[in-house]
Amino acid sequence: MNIEEFFELSAGKWFSHRTSHHLAFKQSEGGKSDIIIETLPADHPEVIKLCEQHQVEFNSGFGARVTWNGTMEWDQEKHEGSTVLVAIPNLDNPMEGKLLREMGYAEKTPVAGTYKMGSDDALTLTTEYETMWSEERLWFASPNLRMRVGILKRFGGFSMASFTSEIRMGGTPAAKTNDAATNTTS
Amino acid sequence: MNIEEFFELSAGKWFSHRTSHHLAFKQSEGGKSDIIIETLPADHPEVIKLCEQHQVEFNSGFGARVTWNGTMEWDQEKHEGSTVLVAIPNLDNPMEGKLLREMGYAEKTPVAGTYKMGSDDALTLTTEYETMWSEERLWFASPNLRMRVGILKRFGGFSMASFTSEIRMGGTPAAKTNDAATNTTS
Repeated sequence: MNIEEFFELSAGKWFSHRTSHHLAFKQSEGGKSDIIIETLPADHPEVIKLCEQHQVEFNSGFGARVTWNGTMEWDQEKHEGSTVLVAIPNLDNPMEGKLLREMGYAEKTPVAGTYKMGSDDALTLTTEYETMWSEERLWFASPNLRMRVGILKRFGGFSMASFTSEIRMGGTPAAKTNDAATNTTS
Repeated sequence: MNIEEFFELSAGKWFSHRTSHHLAFKQSEGGKSDIIIETLPADHPEVIKLCEQHQVEFNSGFGARVTWNGTMEWDQEKHEGSTVLVAIPNLDNPMEGKLLREMGYAEKTPVAGTYKMGSDDALTLTTEYETMWSEERLWFASPNLRMRVGILKRFGGFSMASFTSEIRMGGTPAAKTNDAATNTTS
């Protein structure tokens, strides 16, 4: 699978269930969210704008918009937002490249990281911040069940590990008659 | 890394923090446990006994005993126990083989599954039960931080995904002066 196919398979509406383990405190924190992922064409104004912000020449690549609407365990308030991602494959090896984000996970400012598609079809995203480093591995257990494991380093030490299971809502077009729990079978 | 090295790196005392996502119910459940992993020599009586139980000829392989002492969120009672594992590499490809367990995760009876060491140093364990199928991926984010992601299928549909972060208690001999939160750095 290449990055474009990964984006396409990610498109749709998902129920996203996230648990973070705060390693130093041995505490966990949960969050649930509905997520909508839309692929954006290369000439979409938001893709062009993000490339300009990062001063990256957009030769080829793939964009997506991620919109979320969820709650965190600790406040039960609504957390809503959206961000745009653009993947720009390396010219010599398209299985790796840059990943631009309108908004980072750890900081609410534009960030540029890297992506790597593995031979096992898992996508690894790495982002370096000033005092932080984050890595996230995403893969599909089936076309309707996406899994994510993230790890965050602060000041050189691992501080948080997080796990997200994401179930496609409504299923794929071919499996829409089943419910989410059973059509997670590939 | 081969399976023997993975066992050796796993040896020690760990704080294990597990979260399970019940996919159909969109609920999570947490558990915390202290875990002790000891490697067992090939001629250890428990290794020999487990091979006999499974009627497996033990040409070469590696054993371990895992002992746990923890609590689950839902009852706060102590959960204690121990089990023995034996990995028996395939003769033609030692990066894959059988994994015998005195006690399975899903059923409290002896089970035989398979293991596969990936080129990315992750260990994948697959077990088929009568009506269930489980897969677990284990890897080291650093020598002092082990991660595990498991998935369970029942009657053909994914029913549970689980995530475990495990911090080495006391650290490795070389890093014993640091605390667990900071010496998770590789």
